[in-house]
Amino acid sequence: MPAIKLVKGVLKGNRRDLARLITLIENEHSSAATALSMLYKHTGNAHIVGVTGPPGSGKSTLVTRITAEYRKRSKTIGIVCVDPSSPFTGGALLGDRIRMQEHSLDKDVYVRSMSTRGHLGGLARATSDAVRAIDASGKDIVIVETVGAGQSEVQVVEVAHTVIVADVPGAGDDIQAIKAGIMEIADIFVVNKADYPGADRKVIEINAMLDLDSRERSWRPPVLLTNALTGEGIPELVDTIGAHMSYLQETGLLKQKGLQRSRDELEQIMEYKLTNELFTRLRGTPEYEQAIKKIAGRNDDPYSVAERLIADFLISVRE
Amino acid sequence: MPAIKLVKGVLKGNRRDLARLITLIENEHSSAATALSMLYKHTGNAHIVGVTGPPGSGKSTLVTRITAEYRKRSKTIGIVCVDPSSPFTGGALLGDRIRMQEHSLDKDVYVRSMSTRGHLGGLARATSDAVRAIDASGKDIVIVETVGAGQSEVQVVEVAHTVIVADVPGAGDDIQAIKAGIMEIADIFVVNKADYPGADRKVIEINAMLDLDSRERSWRPPVLLTNALTGEGIPELVDTIGAHMSYLQETGLLKQKGLQRSRDELEQIMEYKLTNELFTRLRGTPEYEQAIKKIAGRNDDPYSVAERLIADFLISVRE
Repeated sequence: MPAIKLVKGVLKGNRRDLARLITLIENEHSSAATALSMLYKHTGNAHIVGVTGPPGSGKSTLVTRITAEYRKRSKTIGIVCVDPSSPFTGGALLGDRIRMQEHSLDKDVYVRSMSTRGHLGGLARATSDAVRAIDASGKDIVIVETVGAGQSEVQVVEVAHTVIVADVPGAGDDIQAIKAGIMEIADIFVVNKADYPGADRKVIEINAMLDLDSRERSWRPPVLLTNALTGEGIPELVDTIGAHMSYLQETGLLKQKGLQRSRDELEQIMEYKLTNELFTRLRGTPEYEQAIKKIAGRNDDPYSVAERLIADFLISVRE
Repeated sequence: MPAIKLVKGVLKGNRRDLARLITLIENEHSSAATALSMLYKHTGNAHIVGVTGPPGSGKSTLVTRITAEYRKRSKTIGIVCVDPSSPFTGGALLGDRIRMQEHSLDKDVYVRSMSTRGHLGGLARATSDAVRAIDASGKDIVIVETVGAGQSEVQVVEVAHTVIVADVPGAGDDIQAIKAGIMEIADIFVVNKADYPGADRKVIEINAMLDLDSRERSWRPPVLLTNALTGEGIPELVDTIGAHMSYLQETGLLKQKGLQRSRDELEQIMEYKLTNELFTRLRGTPEYEQAIKKIAGRNDDPYSVAERLIADFLISVRE
C-alpha cells in the first residue's frame, strides 16, 4: 500500500511525499483512497481559490502574481493547474508552467499540473483529491487554475470557495458563449489592464451585465483592474479574495458550501466505486463480449441489455 | 409513457415527433429509454459526421455549407449542435443557430441544439441518444457540431464515424493547447481560406505536423482548403467524407468502431442506471443527510462512508 506510507510525510508538509501521493491519485492507485481517507480529517483548513477565464485572458500570469502577493503576506500556497483540453496528448500547458518557475525554489509554494488521461469525470475526481491532499499538507491557500473553456469551470466552482474569472475583450461567437457560461460563476472579476487597451470600458461592460443579473444575492462580484506585468491591483485583488472568505463565513454560506461539497464528493466516490465493481465483474467475460456483439449487430439494444446485466449483478453480489 | 407514442412517428420521419422525443431525452424522462430501446434496431444506417475546432474556426458556416452540398446530392440531413460551454445559462450559440435558418424550411434537414443542464456526462448521453433518434428517423447523414474547447471533442469522436477538425491560425497558449488536443482526433482537416489570409501556410503547417505523427495508421487525414463564403472546396470536402466512410468499410474499422461504440453506450447506460438506483434510495433520507454532515464536520471521511453505504445498498437490494 504505497500511498499509506506517504500520509505521515504529507501531514508534515513533505513536498516529495505530496507529489508521490498525487501521482498515485492520478494513476487511480488503489491505496490512494485509503491515504485520502486517513488525511481527510486534516483537511478543510485551506482557502481554495479557483481561477478561470477564456483562452488568452492571462490566468497564469495572474496566478503567479497572486502567489507572490500571498508570499509577501507569509501565506503558504498550493497551485493545481488543471488542463482538460487535451485528453489525447495528456496535455500540458508548458508555456504557462514555465512562467510559474518564478516560485519553483520557494518551498512554501507547491505547484502541480494535472491533465485528463481518460474521461473528464476522472480529472474532476483527481483534481478534487489533489486539492484535499495539498490542504492536508498544511498550505494556507490552494489555487486551482483551469483553462476556461467549458465544463471545466464547473469543477472549479465545485472545489473552490472563491472563484476569480479573468476576462478578455470578446472575439468570436464561441468565445462569447464560453464567457456567458463563466460569467455566472464569478465571485470576483479581474480585467487585465496590461494586455488589453480597452480594459476600462470592459469594467463598465461587466458592471452593466451585473446590473442586469436578476438573481438575489448579497455578494455583488467586484470588478477589479490589474496589471499583471507591473503588479498593479494585485494587493487589492488579494484583499478582495480575503473579503470574500469573510463574507462566506459571516453569512453561513461557508458551512452551506461545505455541506454541498461533501455531498458531491461522497456521491462521486460512490459512483466510481459502484460502477467500478460492476465493470470489473463484467469486462472480459465471454457473455459480456457476446452481449456487446449483439448490440452492435442490432440484435439487441443497450437499454434492455443494461437492465438485464444490472439485475444479474445485483443477484450475484448476494452470493 | 409519452415517449413510446412517438416511436411510430419517428420511424416515419415525422419531425415533430422526433423533436418531442429529443426533448424527453434531454429531460431524462423515464419513457425515453423505452422508446430508444424500441428504435434501436432501426439505427446504424446514418453516417455520423463530427465537426469540431477551436473557437472562431467557422464551424457553423462550414456545417451550413456541407449541408447544402449534401442536399444537392439528395441526401437527408440531421444536425445536432452541442454546446457544453454554458452549464449555468443553459447556453445557446444563438448567432450560429440563426445562420442555420437557411435550411429551416427544408423538411429533409432536421436541426437540433443541445446544451448541458447539469453535468457533462448527461450531455454526452443525451447527445448520443439524440443522434440515435435522428438515425432511426431515417436521415442519411447526421452531423454533430461541437464547440471545440476541451473534453467535448472526445464525445464527438465517440459518436462520429468521421471527425472534421476546422482549424484556425493560433492565438494564445491556451488555444494552442486546445488545438493539440483536437489535432489527434481529426480524420479530415479543414482550413477556412476565406476567414484567414494565412490559410495556405496553415495547410503546410498541419501537414508538417502530420509528418511528425509516429502513430501507425493507414488513413492520413487530408488537409483541405475551403471558402465557406463562396463555397469553394465544399464538394471536395463532401467527397472526402464519403471516401473516409469507404475506407472504414473496406478496412473493417467500421465494424470495430461499431463494437467500441456499443460497448461505451452500454457502459454509460449501466453507469447511469445503477448509480441512479443507489442515489434514489439514499437522497433525502435522514441517515444520508446525517452522514453528509459528519463528513463536512470532518467527523467521518467520504471514502469510508461511500464504502459503508454501498455495502448497505447491496445488502438492501437482496431483500
